[in-house]
This record gives sequence, structure tokens and C-alpha cells, in this order.
Amino acid sequence: MSGSVYGNIFKIATWGESHGKGLGVVIDGCPAGIPLKEKDIQKDMDRRRPGSTRFGTKRQEGDEIEILSGVFEGKTTGTPISLVLYNQDQRSRDYSDIQNIYRPGHADMGFDSKYGFRDYRGGGRSSGRETAARVAAGAVAKKLLSELGVKVNAYTLSIGDVKAEKISLEECKNNPLYMPDSAAAERASRLLEKVMEDGDSMGGIIECRIKGMPIGIGEPVFDKLDASVAKAIMSIGAVKGIEFGDGFGAALSRGSVNNDGFYMKGSKIKKHTNHSGGVLGGFSDGADIVFRAAFKPTPSISKIQKTITNTGESTEVVIMGRHDPIVVPRAVVVVEAMAAVTLADLLLMNMSARIDNIKKFYS
Amino acid sequence: MSGSVYGNIFKIATWGESHGKGLGVVIDGCPAGIPLKEKDIQKDMDRRRPGSTRFGTKRQEGDEIEILSGVFEGKTTGTPISLVLYNQDQRSRDYSDIQNIYRPGHADMGFDSKYGFRDYRGGGRSSGRETAARVAAGAVAKKLLSELGVKVNAYTLSIGDVKAEKISLEECKNNPLYMPDSAAAERASRLLEKVMEDGDSMGGIIECRIKGMPIGIGEPVFDKLDASVAKAIMSIGAVKGIEFGDGFGAALSRGSVNNDGFYMKGSKIKKHTNHSGGVLGGFSDGADIVFRAAFKPTPSISKIQKTITNTGESTEVVIMGRHDPIVVPRAVVVVEAMAAVTLADLLLMNMSARIDNIKKFYS
Amino acid sequence: MSGSVYGNIFKIATWGESHGKGLGVVIDGCPAGIPLKEKDIQKDMDRRRPGSTRFGTKRQEGDEIEILSGVFEGKTTGTPISLVLYNQDQRSRDYSDIQNIYRPGHADMGFDSKYGFRDYRGGGRSSGRETAARVAAGAVAKKLLSELGVKVNAYTLSIGDVKAEKISLEECKNNPLYMPDSAAAERASRLLEKVMEDGDSMGGIIECRIKGMPIGIGEPVFDKLDASVAKAIMSIGAVKGIEFGDGFGAALSRGSVNNDGFYMKGSKIKKHTNHSGGVLGGFSDGADIVFRAAFKPTPSISKIQKTITNTGESTEVVIMGRHDPIVVPRAVVVVEAMAAVTLADLLLMNMSARIDNIKKFYS
Amino acid sequence: MSGSVYGNIFKIATWGESHGKGLGVVIDGCPAGIPLKEKDIQKDMDRRRPGSTRFGTKRQEGDEIEILSGVFEGKTTGTPISLVLYNQDQRSRDYSDIQNIYRPGHADMGFDSKYGFRDYRGGGRSSGRETAARVAAGAVAKKLLSELGVKVNAYTLSIGDVKAEKISLEECKNNPLYMPDSAAAERASRLLEKVMEDGDSMGGIIECRIKGMPIGIGEPVFDKLDASVAKAIMSIGAVKGIEFGDGFGAALSRGSVNNDGFYMKGSKIKKHTNHSGGVLGGFSDGADIVFRAAFKPTPSISKIQKTITNTGESTEVVIMGRHDPIVVPRAVVVVEAMAAVTLADLLLMNMSARIDNIKKFYS
Repeated sequence: MSGSVYGNIFKIATWGESHGKGLGVVIDGCPAGIPLKEKDIQKDMDRRRPGSTRFGTKRQEGDEIEILSGVFEGKTTGTPISLVLYNQDQRSRDYSDIQNIYRPGHADMGFDSKYGFRDYRGGGRSSGRETAARVAAGAVAKKLLSELGVKVNAYTLSIGDVKAEKISLEECKNNPLYMPDSAAAERASRLLEKVMEDGDSMGGIIECRIKGMPIGIGEPVFDKLDASVAKAIMSIGAVKGIEFGDGFGAALSRGSVNNDGFYMKGSKIKKHTNHSGGVLGGFSDGADIVFRAAFKPTPSISKIQKTITNTGESTEVVIMGRHDPIVVPRAVVVVEAMAAVTLADLLLMNMSARIDNIKKFYS
Repeated sequence: MSGSVYGNIFKIATWGESHGKGLGVVIDGCPAGIPLKEKDIQKDMDRRRPGSTRFGTKRQEGDEIEILSGVFEGKTTGTPISLVLYNQDQRSRDYSDIQNIYRPGHADMGFDSKYGFRDYRGGGRSSGRETAARVAAGAVAKKLLSELGVKVNAYTLSIGDVKAEKISLEECKNNPLYMPDSAAAERASRLLEKVMEDGDSMGGIIECRIKGMPIGIGEPVFDKLDASVAKAIMSIGAVKGIEFGDGFGAALSRGSVNNDGFYMKGSKIKKHTNHSGGVLGGFSDGADIVFRAAFKPTPSISKIQKTITNTGESTEVVIMGRHDPIVVPRAVVVVEAMAAVTLADLLLMNMSARIDNIKKFYS
Repeated sequence: MSGSVYGNIFKIATWGESHGKGLGVVIDGCPAGIPLKEKDIQKDMDRRRPGSTRFGTKRQEGDEIEILSGVFEGKTTGTPISLVLYNQDQRSRDYSDIQNIYRPGHADMGFDSKYGFRDYRGGGRSSGRETAARVAAGAVAKKLLSELGVKVNAYTLSIGDVKAEKISLEECKNNPLYMPDSAAAERASRLLEKVMEDGDSMGGIIECRIKGMPIGIGEPVFDKLDASVAKAIMSIGAVKGIEFGDGFGAALSRGSVNNDGFYMKGSKIKKHTNHSGGVLGGFSDGADIVFRAAFKPTPSISKIQKTITNTGESTEVVIMGRHDPIVVPRAVVVVEAMAAVTLADLLLMNMSARIDNIKKFYS
Repeated sequence: MSGSVYGNIFKIATWGESHGKGLGVVIDGCPAGIPLKEKDIQKDMDRRRPGSTRFGTKRQEGDEIEILSGVFEGKTTGTPISLVLYNQDQRSRDYSDIQNIYRPGHADMGFDSKYGFRDYRGGGRSSGRETAARVAAGAVAKKLLSELGVKVNAYTLSIGDVKAEKISLEECKNNPLYMPDSAAAERASRLLEKVMEDGDSMGGIIECRIKGMPIGIGEPVFDKLDASVAKAIMSIGAVKGIEFGDGFGAALSRGSVNNDGFYMKGSKIKKHTNHSGGVLGGFSDGADIVFRAAFKPTPSISKIQKTITNTGESTEVVIMGRHDPIVVPRAVVVVEAMAAVTLADLLLMNMSARIDNIKKFYS
């Protein structure tokens, strides 16, 4: 069944495989009148692009995004925006020797079981490369959000047991790990060097912070803000967990500590603390929305692993290819993208909540 | 916008407020021919029912479920199943004094901001009582799953810092906390007694384990099994985080450890370990599906809290009502319900994956 | 698969069978703040209610609608509105003798083929009684539309070959056929008396006219206004065709005749003619929206018909029950309801079309 | 709001404008294992392609379809299929003089009202050229249907008052009007020559006949087969009406005539007549599905028309461009496409109707 279409009002349909002709996304339901140029999207593509750092795959892709429809005279027209990215450095040869092998930690077996066969070149549709289309969609969603004063920023909170102690968004741009703390970034680099020497890989955590969301966004009881974002983020390949605000820490806490007291600051409602992570009862509560996503270590490693073939024979596999020892740094912009797409949708969904506003709109 | 309808093929629409006439759910898309009686549903309703333990609200509700449609001669007909539950012990008076107050940790402010006013009686639609309709839907989904050999079981993994050390599903029924470890249950009871004396509340963690799922269930790239379940579970009132398998622990791990090696056991594909929690690349991988959800402490506490009124005045609030000091034990069956509804939907969604199966179906 | 849920933002889920406990609808996504009382809905229920005229079924039902949720202090709250209608005069006996017979013109065979068995009492879910839930939903949609100045009126245009020559909405209330022309109504009555004597039934056409729709409503390219309304209307049991404006007549016309020229009347855009029926390119064009739906004759007749049983034996059937010789008069309010539900949804969908309006909304 | 995504399980997202870079469609939810080559699609593209007959636009487009994803080693993989078609002969100049004029019978005014501005080049998204993407999607849907023995064939039933008297699918290929009757085709050609001399255009009717549908397809009560097809067909630009079986004729008929009696032919259920057009109660009934769609005359004519500019000035317009004097012949394949996409979806939706079949599927 259709699983590559996401969203209600702001809807995206992504397509493309790692080693096919290209990847892309159709964005349907983007409001008309938003200024949009290819470079608005390209700058996010470049953050995800392979080949940029020594901690990422060596695959070289220009990842040049092209707008094929939905923009006229520099503005969105309200009709579907089609974005495409052609693959260049495909080197399918790398994968021919593992076409019959189920790589541990990968979706190979799932694809074969479900569909009867699979595009084995580089993971096909289950490749991390699939996220390029998400990033393109996210860049458009961010343009929409920026018109409404909403900002989405993610960063690498931790790599293995190395955790950022301070959060400086500025600092993220200075290190290839997108860590907001230069000292931690240095320690994490050393850790990753060691991991790479071992032919191994490492997990990590991305934190995302959204500023400027109006109060009351989210649709109870199933399309709550946090529930919707959770699905979006968990749908990213290597994510194994998500938490908002105090998250799993809240399970250890008491109500008298965990509750955030309200107060007024001028005409604005504020909270003394933000244990909730900006979401109460599924609605944005006016505070920063804060969530964290746990990424497992890249399953592609060059250590010997025991596994089976698609005909059930025991075998060993050493994955050579060109793989990231850690997906986290390149996934930062993917997390932003999926959050942005979801929030854009929820902001539009909220517009029909009250008849007084609807009457004003149509008068 | 519509936020109380959930699912694709197996679709549910819930309705009802804490202190309105009742609650219910319409289940549309349930296959025909499943044996269904009210008592199949009632036994799950009873697990969630208020008034059953000293750690739950004192509100007394029979919570008798009634099937209004979609069942004929003891079997589902394939048409919508309407289930209703009438409220009895409503005592609206308890709430009249807080109708203008924004209770910390509650959705009061969100509802007022979004809709312009709210049903202030007992939390209205944001009450935990809303989950009764989810449980009813879940009981029907479980009947469907049981026809396919799939079993969903959740239990209280931890309350505050008291964690179950062993997992015995049988033991869950012996203690009011639904903990699978009697010694832990006893320690947790003592902890809760103390918390209640303080007029405070406590958080905890629920773990859920699903057995018998066929391989390959889940629809990439957005409707992955884990992403779909994550949304379902995060949409439950007090949940602040969810993780699958090693979850946040995977962020500290290495690929060589985290990858689960495959092997054959007879004609079945098995894994040596289950770090993945039964989900690889968004598909079920044949191992048990295991996830944990973190619940915050109940926000309703009888300690004095500082807050504001809906007109922005500073005030203090002491919440008297009849509240659970911890939501976890009664939420166990809600977690099962939302997992069951989601898995039922994904199992049906999977049926159109391959043309060979479709041809067989129609021949 | 779920087929009883309809709409995007303003979404309805109907349930219930002819001879089950009752029928109802859950309306999710209705904006908050709309004044709503049971009598607002009841007046439309009464227009559809059986037992009111000699040209309708003799079944007696109070059809008293009850609001179970979503309304507080006389206004919609933005949460799901559950409406229920309990069956009273069920007389299942009438149907026991045809439980194994496939009535010509009915869905009996379809239900058995699809679901393996069926609720044979009075057509079960395929009974015309199912439309009671649609009427209830439509009454709420009309309340929403009336807040925006949109009016939906349908009437019986023709019964067999007797066609209304003039359109007076006032006159509709004066005759049991809801015809807008008293002379035609009289002729049609005589025709129907004759048809009833013959134990036969008759078809007819309903016309619907919507006034006050803003320009630009409808979502290209698939959710066009006319396409959306067409689905809604064609989903009503006995409808076999729908046309907008000149409809099938346009197929005989030339562009120079069929095109409606624009002109200005003050600051309003007007058209000299309305061959389009108020829809151009899928958008409302500011003129009255006009469509017609063709209803087949009621399939339940008391004449002898040849048919088969569910085991493939040849047989004859005479349908006694209590059936309408024509469905058209009672279907008038059903047509209004489905149009209203669809237009309400499209009006809400339109709100996110332009970023300038969205910015104004959120500023 | 998103209006260019259509379908439930077999879902399509179309994009592209008349004079943009190209057009295309993403098909999500197509089952894996269907043989698919570009030429399978191209042959339908060629039937719709401009420039092929003297009764169509003179615009020259190769309309070469390219498969960008979702097919591996000649078979669909179950992942999204992206199809693209680049525009070549765009000649935007033709349109610059009418960028501020509201052409009668066109969607210009609707686009401006809804979105604040429009892509005025050749109708932008409201151009008939948009249907190229539908045809591409339809060709894939037909491949799926052919695997299940279902055949979809449409033809020109009438042009103006010239109607085909006999139906020979073979004959359709012999005349540029796709009429199934050579004598009628000749008369219609003469009529169109006259219309073109007048600088005018003509309407017509397309009939579609589907063979081989299993019984019981369609999802009551809103996603009935006929309701779903009606939406799909009415969403095609110039369609003003649709009817199934006897259609509007049924409104003049009696039950004793209109009901189709059942009988057995071997082990198959058959009907003596097919007044229903193959749909009873929203389910396929085993007979051929037959429907007709009424197309209005092309609104672009070279006769002088009175209209207004987008600033409300009165003006006259003569539309030069390269337009079809009649859309019907080229729309035949579009009707087939939208029917095929809808039926493919409904066939997949039907698979979850019965638990016995589901159990067999998963055993």
C-alpha cells in the first residue's frame, strides 16, 4: 500500500532509489505566493550531500536540485511542486556481490519477504539516500515556516557517549559533526577515528529545537503535535527512539516537579520551566518545542558478520561499499526537514478550528 | 481539522468527553466474519475502568460497552462497528471552580487558544477518560490479530525508579500495578503510598511485546511499522517518549554489537539477538516487536501550584477531583489497544504488496 | 476497507443498519463555536422520516436525533460530534422469507459476494435507512454553511416524465413530493397512484441549487468542486447519474453558446449566463451552483420477479415489506445533506491556498 | 490544500503545467512484480498526444515518457514509480496577450481568485495538457488490471448530435475521432469541419465499458464503485455529467423494467439485462460496467467573445493559440486512465473484506 505519501494539507510524495536514475518529491498543497528558488533548497541539500566530510560516505554526488513545476515568476503557484535530483556516481558494481545476502541490521530480508524481490543496488529504496527527497521537501516547508516566524534547528547532541555540554548553533557550522560544542566535537572526532579504524560504526542522538510556534497547534486526539512529529522522525531510517522535553526522564519524575507553572509576561503566556518540551496535551504550549531522536549505529560495517543468503544458506559478509561510520551528522538536516514538513501541515490544519476565524476569513 | 479519525484500512473514529453523555468509537473497515461479543470488549474495558484499585481515581463507572452496529448473528459484517459507553458518575461540580484556571501540565490553555473556549468539566476531550474509546477499538483489533496468531501484551516496566527485574505476564494479573514482577510491584506500591501522602504523582514506563507478526509488515518509507506505532502511542495523553528494541541505548552502541545476525531454524529465518526490537527498515523482522513508552507523572496533584486564569491573572490552584497518582497501570491496556489497532491496519495494508498474491486472491 | 468515512477536514463516519439498534454519525473536524441544538438537526430528520406521506414507506419511526458529544453550552467545541438515532419499529419478520434470495436491483448479491454473508434484515447497511445518518451530518454542515452565507436547496425536478415547469422553493413545502410546481405535483401524484396500483415503482430527478458560494472553492486537479460533489451524490443509494449546469446538454452545444461571458456588476464579477452550473475548471465561479441527480425507480416492488437464491436456485420473489414507490421526495434532503457536507469541507480546504492569507491569520 | 493526490492504496500524485518544464506522476502503492516497460505507457501517451489529427491542437510534442524509479529488471518493485514527460514545443508567446484576460469557459478567474495570481502560459495547471500525467498513471493501472483479466475500453459515443449507432472497438482505431462506427465518424467529421470553419467548437459524449470485473468490488457507503469512478471522471477538465447504465433514462423508468433479473449460467451469476450498468448498491455486479461522460465544447474558440480583464475592465477576446475544436477524441484515453486508476484501487481495497481470505493469505 501507498507508504511514500505523507501529510494532510501540505502533502509530500517521495520517490527514488539509491542507484536508479534519480530521486525526488512532489509537494502538493503548498500555499501560493511563497518566494522559492532552487538555491533555497540547494543549501539544505548540501548539508546532507555525501562526500563532504571524512566521517561520511565517499560517494560523490552533486545533488543538484531542480524545480520542475509549481513555481512561476519566482513564487509558488499553489499547484504541485515537483523537485528532482539525478543520480550521478552510482557505481552499482559495489553491490553485485551482496545481492543475495541479507545484511544484518538492513531491510534486505524485509524487502524480499514483502515484495518477492528487491532492487539490491545500494539498498534501493531503503538506502539512506532516500532521505535526499525528504530534505528537498523540508526546505520548502521551512520557507513556509519562515513566513510565519517559525524556526527549526537540529544538531548533534551526542555521538556514542560524547555529549555536547553547551548548545551554540553557530558552533555547529564549524565542525563536520554539526555539534553545538567545539570541545565535544573534538572528542567525538577522536572517538569516530577509532571506530573507523576498527571497521565499525557508532550511534548518536540528534536534538531539535523549534522556536516561534503559535500556541494551540496540533489536532487531538490522534494528530497531536508530538504524535505527528514522532511518526515523521521515526520514519527516518536509523531512528530507534524519540522523546519530547524531559522524555524518558519524566518517567522518573513527580508531578510537582514535572508540571510547568504558567505566568504572564506582558500579554504573553509563559511557563517557568519547559519540562514538557513545548507540547501539552498534544498542542504547542508557546515554549520552544524540544525533542531528541536516538540513531542506531550504521549497520554497514567492514567487520566480518555471520548471516544468511536469500535461499537460507549460512554465510559471512564484509560490507565494503562507501558507508558512513555514523549517520548522525548528515541526518541533522533530515530531522529538521521531517519536523518542518509536519509543522507546516499542522499549522495549515489549525486554520479551520474556529468559526469566528473562518467567518473573518470569508468576509 | 479532523484529528479523531485514525488508520487507513482499519479505521477508527473516537468521540466523547469526560463529563458528557458518553464516549464511543466507530470502527470502519473491520473485515467480515470475525466472532465478536460485547464480553470480548468488556474484559479490556474492565482493565482500564476507574475505581478498581487504590492507585486509581475513585470515580465509579460501570463502563459497560454496547455494540450498536456492524455485528450480526455474532460475527462482524464488514460494515461499521459502533461501540458506545454511557457516562454515569459524572459529578460535574468538582470542576466548576477551576473552569477559568489553566492547570499546569494540562491542555486547558491549548484548548482555549485553539477553539476559543473549552468544555471544562473534567478535562472534556483531553481527559484520560477519552482513552476508553481507544480500548474498545483495541479489543476489536485484538480479535482480528488473534485470528492471525498475533498477540499483544503490555505491562508496567517501571514506576519512578522501581523497575521490574523479571517479566512474568502471569504475575501482572496478581498486582494492581500490572507489574510482571511481584517484588518490584511491592516496592512500587510503597513508593506510590508515599507519593500519595505528599499529594503528588509519579511517572513510569510501559513495555509492550508483540508475538507472532509475519515478516515484512510495515509500509516504507513513511508508514513504517515503528513510525506508525510511535504515532499511535505518542498520541496517548501522558506519553513523552517511545523507543524500540535497544532504543536510546542504541545511540551508545556500535554496529558490530547492535546488528542482529540472521540464521535459519528449520525453514524459518531467525536472529541471534533482538537489538532491533523486531523492526528493521520499518518492516517486522520476525522477532518479537518490543517497545517502551515513557509516561509523565499525572499533572493533577493536590499540592498548591502557581498558575494563571484564562484572563491572565496570577492565581494558585489545588486540584481536588478524583485523580490517579499514576496513570501507568491503567494505561497498560491503552498501549495494547493502540498497538493492536495499528498492527491490524498494517497487516491489512500489506495484502496488496505483490501481484502474484493478488492474482491468487482473485483467481 | 473503510468506506463509511468521508471528507478531509470536515469528516464524517456513519454507521448503522436498517434493523439494528440504531444509526448515527461521528462528525470530526467541525469548527468550534457554531450554535447547535438537536432541533437544528431534527427538522431535516423529519423531512426524511418514514411514515409521513402516502408515497413513502409505512414504517413508523420517530427518528429522534440525540447529540452525544462535541457540543457544550449550546455551541460546538471543535471535538467530535456524535449523533445517534435509535431504531424503533423494526419488524424484522417481514424479511425472514427473503434472507436467501437475491432481490433484483438490490445489493444482496454484492454483500454476500464481498463479505461472505449479510445482515438480511431490511437491506442491512444497504437500506435507504442508512441515509438518515447522512441527513444528520448534513444538518450540521448546513449550520456551518449558513454562518458563511451559503444556502443549499434541493427539490424534485421530475417524477417519471412529469417535470416541474417553474421553480418555487416555497411551493415545495406544500406538496408531499417536494416539487416546486403545484400543477406538476398534482400530475405526478396521479402518476404515482397508478404506479402503486400496479405494484410498481418510478424514477425521478432531483435538482439542487447552492447560493452564496465564494469564488475559487474546489481543489484542482482531483478534488474539484464538481468532482467532489459528484462522488458525494453518486454515493446515495439509487443515484445513476449527475450533471452540472447544462450537463449532458453541453455535449450537444457549441463553445460560442456554452461559454458564459463575464461582466462586472459594481465590484462583483458576474456572468451573463450560467451554462457552467457555477463551476469552471473545478472552482466555484460565483454563480449559483446547479446540479441534477437521476434516481432509478425503487427496486423493491410487489410484482413477481424472477431471480435466484444465494445457492443458485431459480426462484420468484414478491417483495412485500413497506417500501417507497419512489425514493425521490424523501431523498431531496439527502441530496442537500451530501452537498452541504462536501461544500463545508471544500470551504475549509480552501483556507490554506495563499500565504498572504495565512500570514494574516497567524499575525 | 492538496488536490493533486488521488487514491487510497494505489495512489497517484500528478504535477506539471502546460508551459513549464514538464509533467509527471508519482504512483505509490503499485504492487511489486508487474512487468513494466516505457513502451507499455508510451502507447497510451501516443493516443493522447497533440499534433496527431486535424481535429486536435497543432502543438507538436513527442510526449516521450520516462520511468525514473520503481522498476528494476523490468518489473515493478512495490516502491514509488516516478514517470516524467518533458515539454518541448512550448511557445509561451501565444499566451502573453491574454495574461490579464479572463477567458470565458476557462478557469482563469478561479485561479486568480483562489491563489492571488496564476501561471497564465497556456492555462498552466488547468490546461488539458495536465491530463498527460493521468494517462501515464492509467497505463500502469491497466497493466495491473490486465494481470487480473480486467479490460477498460472507451470510445467516442457522440459528437454534437452525431451518435454512433453500432459499437465496434476495432473501428475506433480506423478514424481520428475514435468512434466505433465508421459511418457516424464520417458524419461527425463533416460536422467538425463546419464547426472549425466557424471558429467554434463542439461537445460530445464518451462511453466506457469495463469487462472482467469480479463481483463485489466497491466499498459502501461512500466509496462505492460508481461514486468513486464518478469523481475520477468528473475531475477531467471539460466533463459536465456522468451516468451509469440507463443513467438519466432510469429516472423515466419503472422498477419492473429497470430491475435486472438474475439467473445462473453454469456456476456464474448472470443478469438478463444490464440496466444497472454493472453496478448494484455500489458493488460491481458481474456484468459489464458501462458509463457515459458528457464533455462540453472546448472553451477556446476564435470567435470574438466579450469578457473582462483581471482588473475588472470590459474587453473582447479572440483566442488564437492552437486548440482542439473538440476534446472528446483525445479525451477517450484519459477516461480510460481515470477509470483504470480507480478500479485498480478498488480491487486492492477489496482484499481485506473477509477474515477467512485474510487468514488464508497469512497462513
